[in-house]
Amino acid sequence: MFQTNEQLLKAEIIAIGNEITTGLIQESNSTYMAKRLNEEGVDVARVVSIGDIESDIENVINEALRKSNIVITTGGLGPTHDDITKKVLTNMFKSEPKQDPKVLQDIENFFRNRGKTIPEYSKPQSIVPHNAEILYNEKGTAPGFLFKRNGNSLYVLPGVPLEMRHLFEKYIAVDVRKTGKNKIGHRILNTTGITESKLWEQIGAIEPLNDNVQIASLPSHLGIRIRLSATGENEAETQEKLDKAERFFQDKIPELIYGKNDESLEEIIGRLLLDKNQKLSVAESCTGGLIGHRLTNISGSSEYFLEGMTTYTNEAKIKRLGVPENIIETYGAVSRETAIAMAEGMRKVSGADFAVSVTGIAGPTGGTKEKPVGLTYIAVSGEWVCECQQFIFPQDRERNKERAAQSALNLLRLELLKID
Amino acid sequence: MFQTNEQLLKAEIIAIGNEITTGLIQESNSTYMAKRLNEEGVDVARVVSIGDIESDIENVINEALRKSNIVITTGGLGPTHDDITKKVLTNMFKSEPKQDPKVLQDIENFFRNRGKTIPEYSKPQSIVPHNAEILYNEKGTAPGFLFKRNGNSLYVLPGVPLEMRHLFEKYIAVDVRKTGKNKIGHRILNTTGITESKLWEQIGAIEPLNDNVQIASLPSHLGIRIRLSATGENEAETQEKLDKAERFFQDKIPELIYGKNDESLEEIIGRLLLDKNQKLSVAESCTGGLIGHRLTNISGSSEYFLEGMTTYTNEAKIKRLGVPENIIETYGAVSRETAIAMAEGMRKVSGADFAVSVTGIAGPTGGTKEKPVGLTYIAVSGEWVCECQQFIFPQDRERNKERAAQSALNLLRLELLKID
Repeated sequence: MFQTNEQLLKAEIIAIGNEITTGLIQESNSTYMAKRLNEEGVDVARVVSIGDIESDIENVINEALRKSNIVITTGGLGPTHDDITKKVLTNMFKSEPKQDPKVLQDIENFFRNRGKTIPEYSKPQSIVPHNAEILYNEKGTAPGFLFKRNGNSLYVLPGVPLEMRHLFEKYIAVDVRKTGKNKIGHRILNTTGITESKLWEQIGAIEPLNDNVQIASLPSHLGIRIRLSATGENEAETQEKLDKAERFFQDKIPELIYGKNDESLEEIIGRLLLDKNQKLSVAESCTGGLIGHRLTNISGSSEYFLEGMTTYTNEAKIKRLGVPENIIETYGAVSRETAIAMAEGMRKVSGADFAVSVTGIAGPTGGTKEKPVGLTYIAVSGEWVCECQQFIFPQDRERNKERAAQSALNLLRLELLKID
Repeated sequence: MFQTNEQLLKAEIIAIGNEITTGLIQESNSTYMAKRLNEEGVDVARVVSIGDIESDIENVINEALRKSNIVITTGGLGPTHDDITKKVLTNMFKSEPKQDPKVLQDIENFFRNRGKTIPEYSKPQSIVPHNAEILYNEKGTAPGFLFKRNGNSLYVLPGVPLEMRHLFEKYIAVDVRKTGKNKIGHRILNTTGITESKLWEQIGAIEPLNDNVQIASLPSHLGIRIRLSATGENEAETQEKLDKAERFFQDKIPELIYGKNDESLEEIIGRLLLDKNQKLSVAESCTGGLIGHRLTNISGSSEYFLEGMTTYTNEAKIKRLGVPENIIETYGAVSRETAIAMAEGMRKVSGADFAVSVTGIAGPTGGTKEKPVGLTYIAVSGEWVCECQQFIFPQDRERNKERAAQSALNLLRLELLKID
């Protein structure tokens, strides 16, 4: 499929659109593809974003095709006048435009399924270059194209993320796998609740792994991800090396790793609650509903998530959750005592097996010398347990909220793990 | 500052890091800078992301400096062994490394303010190239650099977003303004609650504006943004053209435009509630807490946001909000009647002036023929008003939640506008 003498296939991604170079949208197609190509054992040499300018598009594609086995463009295939990618390629590859009956049929079906007839402006999307392979797109109205030059491949995809992903998986991932070159493998272990330096201190010497895997430490404000990469003679050998390395980390830091690869804390918690047949409710304050939002991003969460309350005022904490007035008066709304009373109150009032609560000062205002911005208490209440932790988050309002929600979900996870 | 004969300065952004080309992080520094450069009247010709590879970094920078007045790199200035940007530049510009006492002092202060002493591994960050201007960084430990070649400028910034933004505004934005070339101006009008085709139908002919502004339509699942761009002989003339164009749109679609530029719906609602001295509470179901989360992202929201309840189960809807059991039995939990009862119940129980409610089927499961996935009812209850709207959102779970939250906030905004 791709001609190359080197160990790894090399790719370049080109994102096309004025909305990218003017910062009007956050380009994310290239992140998806870079990650997926990497997983498939393809090395992404670079990612270039350019505007809808004919000469720029042509130059960047020509240069990329000289250097890389796989070049992928996204964007500029829509029906409006500033979508010029197809026109540029038709010139570059001296293509004759022809109508593809299957593409026309696909577009007609696309609109029919939405109870509409094909609009006039969409019909030209069925005109394709005669010397390109067509990448049929069931998710939208713009087909993709595959051009070849000197054994290198140029994939031309639409910019709508849903359609780009569909065509990437349907064509590019399949073609890459056919080469049999994808012997590299990756695995990510997700941790949270510990600083990067303490994490690696606790893990200790990693030399025993050095021959088999490369290890990268990827910090963010929500936790540290450990990325393992291995290369084997075949898929089974690669996976075996990754399994061995994963076991090493699972032995060293069993409780710190909450999930693998794309797994989120809310997904893990959902599984734990289902497995252990436990119901959950949530009492929030400074997080404003973010914990409930994250938990309910999981399809099927209505099986275990009963309800959430965001008791933003003292009155709501007292009335809804039964937090004793004198606790708030004595210790303040942001205190260990209030967090515990919120979690216990929420559990009782909702009839859930577990309740988690958060109260804190998200900032940037509202801090005092005794209770600075970022001070946050998180409690988990169960029938046999009530845990409370104090945090001081050092960032801006939105990230403090995100860290508080992450910490609350993690504390809940650790308590759920203790149930037989 | 920058030597150029053309109307607009031309820039190129280079993001450096293996974590970008392997798709491990979503690169967003370039989006921030592209947007800001565009606002300052600088044309961003392209954005390139490359890994931490010496020859790649050198080639991309050399090429960019041949073509662009302003070249900005981010990333690779940290203290670890894979941060090689400074080393590459030192070679490229034949620099002598020297210690900068002010940088050392800044780093020591940075750690002292956090109650720490400077760690050994951070000390080399005070070694700088002798022939670069130093961009002093109060927000972190890596200083930036400015190199010059043939009148073009190479700004070298750290990759931490907070530090990048600080140095961008402190140095680059200031340098650009000194050139006096920034006569281009932009303004964005944010709309929601209408499809793109209906929006432009309602606006009608825009020819009267054509001589003065360029207009772009930027759709997303949360609304359509209208972007106005104008170029004048000076800043006042540019702004006058934008004002005139804005008035045109405000006349045509006064209620559809909720804010300008970066203004969010939650920000606008916060201002309306403060202005009109109204208190708000929220009853959510399928949105899971997202509306409360968005409202509380605004600093000072405790002035008007009383509380939120996410009544995920029928029982919670009945017990917390007083939704009559027979309403749920007769019409179902996802119905106009339940949405109205939730909003009215929330308003009464919380003592707020206004309450907004959402009930729907976020998907991907849970739909029936009569009540498909995406069916959502949104209600707003006030002392003199109760409005309810039905929607069928066509996307995935997360985007359906986001659209429901956006629609709820917009319905609330429209009701608040009616208060004298």
